Amino acid sequence: MENDITGVILELERDALKRWGSGDPDGFLEISATGVSYFDPMQATRLDGLDRLSALYDTIRGKIKIDSSEIVNPRVQIAGDAAVLTYQFISRGSEGTMRWNSTAVYQRDAGRWRIIHSHWSFVQPVLAPKT
Amino acid sequence: MENDITGVILELERDALKRWGSGDPDGFLEISATGVSYFDPMQATRLDGLDRLSALYDTIRGKIKIDSSEIVNPRVQIAGDAAVLTYQFISRGSEGTMRWNSTAVYQRDAGRWRIIHSHWSFVQPVLAPKT
Repeated sequence: MENDITGVILELERDALKRWGSGDPDGFLEISATGVSYFDPMQATRLDGLDRLSALYDTIRGKIKIDSSEIVNPRVQIAGDAAVLTYQFISRGSEGTMRWNSTAVYQRDAGRWRIIHSHWSFVQPVLAPKT
Repeated sequence: MENDITGVILELERDALKRWGSGDPDGFLEISATGVSYFDPMQATRLDGLDRLSALYDTIRGKIKIDSSEIVNPRVQIAGDAAVLTYQFISRGSEGTMRWNSTAVYQRDAGRWRIIHSHWSFVQPVLAPKT
């Protein structure tokens, strides 16, 4: 049972990442819940709601091209109808080489798993000196 | 019911943050689950397990002093026996002024809420130019 859920979650994420890497953010939008919450390092605040996430992703549609990528050490922690997927993501492409920490919390609703929270951040970012 | 859970989760986090700000990481360790997973921007990889998180926190025990802080726009999303707390945290103290995105996933186990996943990252970090 746990292995089944882990497999389902990983497949959902892999499919969404694959589409993401060809400039198509709809893979993630299609599996995100209406009330999704979202952090990434480019945003000043948390985004709340699928409308706001869609508006963000609309601005980058077609602009990202990942040539090769790797999902490092994925782990799924299951808590009832919630599942916490964590991994690191290394991508090489239009943005150069990027190393990300990624958290995606999925919730099962009427048999379908949807992302209710996503948090993207840089692995060990090298900060500019403070002025 | 949802309001109750939100209140309980927020109080747990506030108490742990308060102790954290006086150099005491045990507040977080005491409410973290054995299998906790953990990201912060200083680590090269995800830490898995309370032992590894304890070892990390042991290295900073007594070293952090937060003079003033603010929990910005906290939100709790409830999914059965899991609760996803997200907020931004602004702190001023021994590390200067810091702005964090924070995700803490809690799970209720035998009536007690414990953190099963934590993800800390910088809000809009200013990166050094790549060399």
